[in-house]
Amino acid sequence: MSAPKVLALTGGVGGAKLGLGLAHCLPSENLAFVVNTGDDFEHLGLPISPDLDTLLYTLAGEVHEDQGWGRRDETWTVLNTLERLGGASWFRLGDKDLALHLRRRETLASGARLTQAMALLGDAFSVPFPLLPMSDDPVRTVLTTREFGRLPFQSYFVRERCAPTVQAIAYEGAGAAGLSPEVAAALADPALDLIVLCPSNPYLSIAPLLAIPPLRKALERRRVPAVAVCPLVGGAAVKGPTAKLMDELHVPRTPASIARYYGGVIDGLILDEQDRSHADAVRAEGVTPDVAPTVMLTLGDKITLAQRTLAFGETLRG
Amino acid sequence: MSAPKVLALTGGVGGAKLGLGLAHCLPSENLAFVVNTGDDFEHLGLPISPDLDTLLYTLAGEVHEDQGWGRRDETWTVLNTLERLGGASWFRLGDKDLALHLRRRETLASGARLTQAMALLGDAFSVPFPLLPMSDDPVRTVLTTREFGRLPFQSYFVRERCAPTVQAIAYEGAGAAGLSPEVAAALADPALDLIVLCPSNPYLSIAPLLAIPPLRKALERRRVPAVAVCPLVGGAAVKGPTAKLMDELHVPRTPASIARYYGGVIDGLILDEQDRSHADAVRAEGVTPDVAPTVMLTLGDKITLAQRTLAFGETLRG
Repeated sequence: MSAPKVLALTGGVGGAKLGLGLAHCLPSENLAFVVNTGDDFEHLGLPISPDLDTLLYTLAGEVHEDQGWGRRDETWTVLNTLERLGGASWFRLGDKDLALHLRRRETLASGARLTQAMALLGDAFSVPFPLLPMSDDPVRTVLTTREFGRLPFQSYFVRERCAPTVQAIAYEGAGAAGLSPEVAAALADPALDLIVLCPSNPYLSIAPLLAIPPLRKALERRRVPAVAVCPLVGGAAVKGPTAKLMDELHVPRTPASIARYYGGVIDGLILDEQDRSHADAVRAEGVTPDVAPTVMLTLGDKITLAQRTLAFGETLRG
Repeated sequence: MSAPKVLALTGGVGGAKLGLGLAHCLPSENLAFVVNTGDDFEHLGLPISPDLDTLLYTLAGEVHEDQGWGRRDETWTVLNTLERLGGASWFRLGDKDLALHLRRRETLASGARLTQAMALLGDAFSVPFPLLPMSDDPVRTVLTTREFGRLPFQSYFVRERCAPTVQAIAYEGAGAAGLSPEVAAALADPALDLIVLCPSNPYLSIAPLLAIPPLRKALERRRVPAVAVCPLVGGAAVKGPTAKLMDELHVPRTPASIARYYGGVIDGLILDEQDRSHADAVRAEGVTPDVAPTVMLTLGDKITLAQRTLAFGETLRG
């Protein structure tokens, strides 16, 4: 059997882990990524794309392994100096990371679309897989919080460390955002075999993609199976505020809630072994469950989960 | 005798050396600088002010002593990484220097004028002397060269290392540039005793100041002596393209040429000891000559020349 052709939808750290696993299982022409840009923002005059960069650094082998984002062997001279000069230092930009943002700014300023800027950066890092922004139009995730009112994503996520209580989430600009030619082509690719929703935060990382009408429509009208990996393990998130957010949004912290949230855009959901008892509830949502170890600590874990995801997709393709 | 109150007009490295000497001779309330911004440009999206920064770093004791500009103990992680990513690296921005430009960008983006941004940076570096941009309006020195046609200053100076043959120099924007309230107040200060034109390149560093009509007018109508330090020593420049430029502009490389160029805005010119024989020619231009060692290698040299400059001003004040 030849390798399937896969389109992976992903956000930050968790998604990048499965992305790395998939990258080890598939030849470069068989894997493309569509990446959340709802976390993007401008900081210090630079265009920052956290999820795209986390995936880029991960696939390039340049990611800081312990934290899951940013570059390994990073230095902090600029930020430390900026701090001494009274500048904004709450968003931790390392020296090497800063160089990437400067390069992206330079590329965008020359008239390139974000998709083109990322293609150039992917080449510079010898990453052979297309890392496609979900749209070249700006989409900004904004949270309504009890403590601060309206908070742009990074102010919530980094500056306030997800502490504020979230009352609502908006994906500003999503309704008017279009598909880039590259994303449109990837979705319409007749050779496509499988769509994977990586185990990123559904509300913060995958929801912005689904809030773009032509992207949601393309997923709803898919002619290939779509499989998600559940980001919850035993009612908790491996990383990040998914579980806290579900409580605040009054959603039960169960795989069935994830299945319901992804209703219409997935056919199958991979649950962690700990959540085996939730399989029937997932099936009740009209989604086929599969059970596997989903916690990815080692590269081996990532590859194993990627293989399992591809195999599950194969069974759904029937 | 109490210390005189001095306004020093300056450009880059040579001017900053005398500036440091003056800073050692005068209390902070008796010395202010008006600094060339004709070399300023935007690079990598950041506002770069080379002459202001050279003076700032010099007065703060942070300058790279050997090269005379940039910061000592500098690191180059960002630029080296940017270079590997295919970005522009011809303009050498160190990591610490970059932090300054990011901070200035942040300040300007919040609505501050350049003068205010420099005041904030001066405070951050504990420099007690006002470092006033010659104008808050943009002025850009542009050279017409035989080899490249029109060249913005930094492209000529840094990228092409002053190699192109200069046919003409323009100070774009100078005709429409206004005085900041701070420069206007410094020029009109009734307590002012002396104006010093530092030994910077007359055509590239001081000329942009003189090209601003209200600044030239204020200098022409001065009620205190103005003294320049000749940037030539034995027909050569201590640093930079002054002598080469004079040849290309068909101006004899003599102190008298400098006296003539500064006609109407100086009363006295300090010549180097090597140029003692040119004193009469300077006097013939209507400018009082003084002779002193002008090459500043050590801090002692700088202080000695500053003392000599202040004493010369005192004799001209009569």
